[in-house]
Amino acid sequence: MATQLTYALEGKITKAMKEVAEDENYTPEEICEKVKSGKIVIPINKNRNFRAVGIGEGLKTKVNANIGTSPSRHCMDSELLKLKTAVDAGADAVMDLSTGGNLSQILEEIVAKSPVMIGTVPIYKVVSKYMEQGKDAKEFTKEDLFEEILFHAKTGVDFITVHCGITRHTVSVLENCDRKMGIVSRGGSFLAEWIVRNGKENPLYEYFDELLDICLEYDVTLSLGDGLRPGAICDAEDRAQISELITLGELTKRARAKGVQVMIEGPGHVPLSRIAGDMKQQKRFCENAPYYVLGPLPTDIAPGYDHIVGAIGGAIAASNGADFLCYVTPAEHLTLPDLDDVRQGVITSKIAAHIGDIEKGVKGAWERNLQMADARRTFDWEKMFELSIDPELARKRRNASEDSKRDVCTMCGDLCALKTWNRAVESK
Amino acid sequence: MATQLTYALEGKITKAMKEVAEDENYTPEEICEKVKSGKIVIPINKNRNFRAVGIGEGLKTKVNANIGTSPSRHCMDSELLKLKTAVDAGADAVMDLSTGGNLSQILEEIVAKSPVMIGTVPIYKVVSKYMEQGKDAKEFTKEDLFEEILFHAKTGVDFITVHCGITRHTVSVLENCDRKMGIVSRGGSFLAEWIVRNGKENPLYEYFDELLDICLEYDVTLSLGDGLRPGAICDAEDRAQISELITLGELTKRARAKGVQVMIEGPGHVPLSRIAGDMKQQKRFCENAPYYVLGPLPTDIAPGYDHIVGAIGGAIAASNGADFLCYVTPAEHLTLPDLDDVRQGVITSKIAAHIGDIEKGVKGAWERNLQMADARRTFDWEKMFELSIDPELARKRRNASEDSKRDVCTMCGDLCALKTWNRAVESK
Repeated sequence: MATQLTYALEGKITKAMKEVAEDENYTPEEICEKVKSGKIVIPINKNRNFRAVGIGEGLKTKVNANIGTSPSRHCMDSELLKLKTAVDAGADAVMDLSTGGNLSQILEEIVAKSPVMIGTVPIYKVVSKYMEQGKDAKEFTKEDLFEEILFHAKTGVDFITVHCGITRHTVSVLENCDRKMGIVSRGGSFLAEWIVRNGKENPLYEYFDELLDICLEYDVTLSLGDGLRPGAICDAEDRAQISELITLGELTKRARAKGVQVMIEGPGHVPLSRIAGDMKQQKRFCENAPYYVLGPLPTDIAPGYDHIVGAIGGAIAASNGADFLCYVTPAEHLTLPDLDDVRQGVITSKIAAHIGDIEKGVKGAWERNLQMADARRTFDWEKMFELSIDPELARKRRNASEDSKRDVCTMCGDLCALKTWNRAVESK
Repeated sequence: MATQLTYALEGKITKAMKEVAEDENYTPEEICEKVKSGKIVIPINKNRNFRAVGIGEGLKTKVNANIGTSPSRHCMDSELLKLKTAVDAGADAVMDLSTGGNLSQILEEIVAKSPVMIGTVPIYKVVSKYMEQGKDAKEFTKEDLFEEILFHAKTGVDFITVHCGITRHTVSVLENCDRKMGIVSRGGSFLAEWIVRNGKENPLYEYFDELLDICLEYDVTLSLGDGLRPGAICDAEDRAQISELITLGELTKRARAKGVQVMIEGPGHVPLSRIAGDMKQQKRFCENAPYYVLGPLPTDIAPGYDHIVGAIGGAIAASNGADFLCYVTPAEHLTLPDLDDVRQGVITSKIAAHIGDIEKGVKGAWERNLQMADARRTFDWEKMFELSIDPELARKRRNASEDSKRDVCTMCGDLCALKTWNRAVESK
């Protein structure tokens, strides 16, 4: 019954803390101290073995890729290819959000094959199974839900999204809001429906201590879901969203008191100028717990390009304290992502994360830009590729151009500004 | 000898002002007043006839696409296709930056075929011709430059980029800066070399009044170029950049006093948290002249994805007052853009511009998002496509999915959050 947090509280430095320290240029003691304070989580299930990654204050902003089947598209091999594509593109975490096919088998396979942390949303599987059997989604029981969570914990899942902030109270707040989009979180909607139609409290809230016991036993990090996140910029930061966040802040304290690692999930669709404030509010309400955001998306009108919209919001979010970005792919709002969507999603999020890292002063981020400037000034194309977020694409584009064998590019040829100014300087 | 500005100063409402008023939901009087103050420019050469577009305070953020040949790739048909692609994707302006092939003919053809405003950088053509003939780039004369500018004005060019702020003074400031990247503006580098190697003042600065006379005669809008813009985030907002901006502010006053419309060009590579301040500084120094920015790019390390980096910077820039975004394509820093790059560049910039418009409170921007939320809530896919920034792509992605004939999407199928919550609400 030990977690990275309980070890930290005892002042014990773990292998995972040492790995994080090494990768982020800190001492193990510094990492241990931050885990202890809850500002950092290191999601690694006690049944798993991979190089640990930390999420939180002072660390590089991490990127998660959602993969998984859907009722109308479920092929195991495709999902394993998505996993590989995401990891190769640089994802720090992958969530299996499967809702179609043999869900337990898919999860086991993904956990077995993944070299990075794995997250899930257990309620998806509970409701998927009910609906597949033609049953009403409101019929699942507290036992169904907790059995599923226990299965995930035993299988080795490193973090789980649980919508504990969807309660009778927050749902009533929602019902009094004039929201356009209601609930756009799948997990959130299942629990809200369950509460409303059964007239009972959310079991994840009512039996939160039982949930903590499971997490404590397997060191599963809680990712407290934002079931009431806005699904349109006009719904952002309304009473419903914020009352849920307040609840999540209270639950953060309870989780930490038991030794369970916890992070918080955030919006969603948010107007650009309000993203920074949202990040800071989460840190206040949730005692500086790591913030895991989806997007945010500062406009609703760009389906097909929501990875770009998400990168705009994500860069600002990360610059203002978000620690973990859930990718958004070009398929968002339209269809299930394919392999190319996964790759685009990860790379685009990594750009946003890196821009955030520059602003946060994360070690090495500014320096990488300095090195790129040096490589550009000296026309060192190989170095430029190496420093790029996607060396393969950069090399491919350059090599396909007419001037690829010369030290100029096809944009300017000999009319290169750098060369012109160098010529002027040398003439003196 | 009349420009939109001189008409406005006389209180005369032009056809162009009426068109802008209609398209932006203002009265012609309001537009006239803003043109008079210099806060808005309407670049339309007196020799041209197209539906006028305004740039500046209170108006929709506009997008420019750079096209043009290079010494190693020059085909007229390709450029005309790029023009069409840019306009179809929604570009409000196109700049012909050709530096290879028959430059005058290419320009004439592009101006003749373009339904949108056309901009150029006349010095490109002056230096290109010299270098093509094997001559030294520093040999061009003041007369060569002004003849070329006059040719552009007569041909119908609506705005010209002129690097009048590259002066003996600002070059000396640059020489005292520890910049990594020196000069990355082509036009800026030609003039800086000319100043240094000839030991004379920039003719565009020394004979600024002659330049104004040409602009006044043809109503060519001056786009005062930022020849000392930073080419790496570490060089941003140094003494060189800002001393040039101060000079541009002074020239803005002189241009307006003569009745010439003027806008200002801006960076470049700028760290994210400094973009907002840069926008506000430009407005202060340049008496609220419209700001035309390239990017800005808040990181240097994403060649192949600089359209996305530019959208991140552009969204923040536009939100903080930038009026006109010059697109950045995926080809930036690597090669000359192809047709797909042009399309991607325009659409990505339009997303950034729209996010800026939401924040600026531009009429209609917020409403378009509200309409999208309504369409999503009611599963009105046709309406969603229509409201999208790229209806064609959104429709294509949706139609290729397994659930395209149903009112759900392949992401969630029947596990749709909106439907689930609707079911709960209806059960009450």
